[in-house]
Amino acid sequence: MPTTKRVTLAQRPTGMPDDDTWSIEEVELPPLGDGEFLVKTDHISLDPAMRGWLNDVRSYLPPVQIGEVMRATVTGTVVESRHPDFAVGEAVSGMLGVTELAVTDGEGVQKIDISVAGPATWLGALGMPGLTAYHGLHEVGEISAGDTVVISAAAGAVGSVAGQIAKAKGCTVIGIAGGPEKCAWLKEIGFDEAIDYKSENVLKALRTAAPDGIDVFFDNVGGDILDAGLANLRRGARVVICGAVSTYNDEKLAPGPSRYMALLVFRAKMQGFLVFDYPDKDAAAIEDMSSMIRSGDLVARETVVEGGVEDFGRTLLGLFRGENIGKLVLKIA
Amino acid sequence: MPTTKRVTLAQRPTGMPDDDTWSIEEVELPPLGDGEFLVKTDHISLDPAMRGWLNDVRSYLPPVQIGEVMRATVTGTVVESRHPDFAVGEAVSGMLGVTELAVTDGEGVQKIDISVAGPATWLGALGMPGLTAYHGLHEVGEISAGDTVVISAAAGAVGSVAGQIAKAKGCTVIGIAGGPEKCAWLKEIGFDEAIDYKSENVLKALRTAAPDGIDVFFDNVGGDILDAGLANLRRGARVVICGAVSTYNDEKLAPGPSRYMALLVFRAKMQGFLVFDYPDKDAAAIEDMSSMIRSGDLVARETVVEGGVEDFGRTLLGLFRGENIGKLVLKIA
Repeated sequence: MPTTKRVTLAQRPTGMPDDDTWSIEEVELPPLGDGEFLVKTDHISLDPAMRGWLNDVRSYLPPVQIGEVMRATVTGTVVESRHPDFAVGEAVSGMLGVTELAVTDGEGVQKIDISVAGPATWLGALGMPGLTAYHGLHEVGEISAGDTVVISAAAGAVGSVAGQIAKAKGCTVIGIAGGPEKCAWLKEIGFDEAIDYKSENVLKALRTAAPDGIDVFFDNVGGDILDAGLANLRRGARVVICGAVSTYNDEKLAPGPSRYMALLVFRAKMQGFLVFDYPDKDAAAIEDMSSMIRSGDLVARETVVEGGVEDFGRTLLGLFRGENIGKLVLKIA
Repeated sequence: MPTTKRVTLAQRPTGMPDDDTWSIEEVELPPLGDGEFLVKTDHISLDPAMRGWLNDVRSYLPPVQIGEVMRATVTGTVVESRHPDFAVGEAVSGMLGVTELAVTDGEGVQKIDISVAGPATWLGALGMPGLTAYHGLHEVGEISAGDTVVISAAAGAVGSVAGQIAKAKGCTVIGIAGGPEKCAWLKEIGFDEAIDYKSENVLKALRTAAPDGIDVFFDNVGGDILDAGLANLRRGARVVICGAVSTYNDEKLAPGPSRYMALLVFRAKMQGFLVFDYPDKDAAAIEDMSSMIRSGDLVARETVVEGGVEDFGRTLLGLFRGENIGKLVLKIA
């Protein structure tokens, strides 16, 4: 049987992960059992949520255990199969972990149509980030034409898709992102306004950009940016809690949104959700986003880092430094 | 024309109001115009929300202006009338302010049926606090039989009614209150559990009292108690933001709920509301609560302080010190 290089969790990080967090190991794979197949990874997804999976706390998924292969969604190709539904040569995606080769029984593995978009896009706009944007806006944000929609981390994998979906639906869309390059790109892909949180007072900039208030605040960030959104709600607003990337590496619990009482003043709701909550709606969402990609309404962008699985750790840090525009993926050379 | 003593806002307080906040004045009333009537106050309502009305900030109601009569809901009797619908001798309630006598055109003034309950109850269980409890639980909390419902400031005017409504609806009800006397009373009126935040770790006590998690957290308090609730939600929970009395006298914005990301983990919503939002449902709610009072399912309790309008300021401080059980009213001697 072949051997594979893979990344396991060596110890739980305090604050930002570092080299001591990970262990790179080379192991021989067991022979395929009946109903199993072997996938050769070509792209590994880097997601903010990964940081949470490293903490030993009760959450929506169990924590990654010490010694366990790091959880990650990947794309790859079937290179050997004893499974009736997956043939050698087929492109797939699934949560197969940070590994060059993975043995799977197909649980949670999807075939992907790379004639619609390349594998990296199947980790981004057509993968979990895209579905997160889609379900969050529709199921929790309840967007409708004419709404003023504000999106934080707007140049990221989820935010950039969310903004374009809202725009296509007839909303006014304001993005918040860090730095002139990201803001310029947001305008390029159709955002009505882009606020640079590194150089602007977000609370005041939102007041100017959304003088009548915000109907939907789609928050990926938390902290002061969430507060700036709360201070500018319109009556009946929906605050969609998608993430809090500004806080994921904090060593202790950060203060929450000081302005949460705006929910009372504006009779607003703040609601969390997870992409896994709407499995019945995934296929239609991917269909819809695929046709938006074909029509040009949805620009799917990825920041692709090339390397080996051993580069996973440093690539993840780039995500928390905000180095990516669009979806960050590690392409296995 | 008669003269009246009344309380006006002398200056905006920083932190807790004090004697300098208020001015006591005696003025001669203008003669009644056509369509007006004169009300002699018998009870004045003391509400946590009053503190917010003193701040010069945009909110759901305009701030009370310097020199203006302090806003308050009162009960009283019509003593003179040039209004076709209000006759001398009728009992009424309305937002007539902290004054012995008030001239009104009847806008926002309701007749009250003191055969159902005395005037103080019409400021409590059958007044705005009762309606707040009723609408918050039904319209925002969406309670149904079998839910585990947690109520903070549970021995207060809103909380004590909310708990009894939830209980009557078939919920398991846990109250959080300060001190053994309040907790004993909560058990007496049917709460399943009472947690004393002054002597217990609320987060741990909630874990014990609601081992399967909280479906509805009805929060009047904010701060650490809200965080303790968030840490113990059940999937799909509703957090009803009714107030944040622990923070109303803070000189700067207190930190928000650190554990708000529990909304994501538990796919929960946190939503604010105001009692004024459901005018079409007020009559049915009062009807329902009146029959609960008659049947004994709803015990309406008031803490009655006797005095003159000049005692308003010190009575209000008692509210923020948590000296009342049930509704706090100032009975004009």
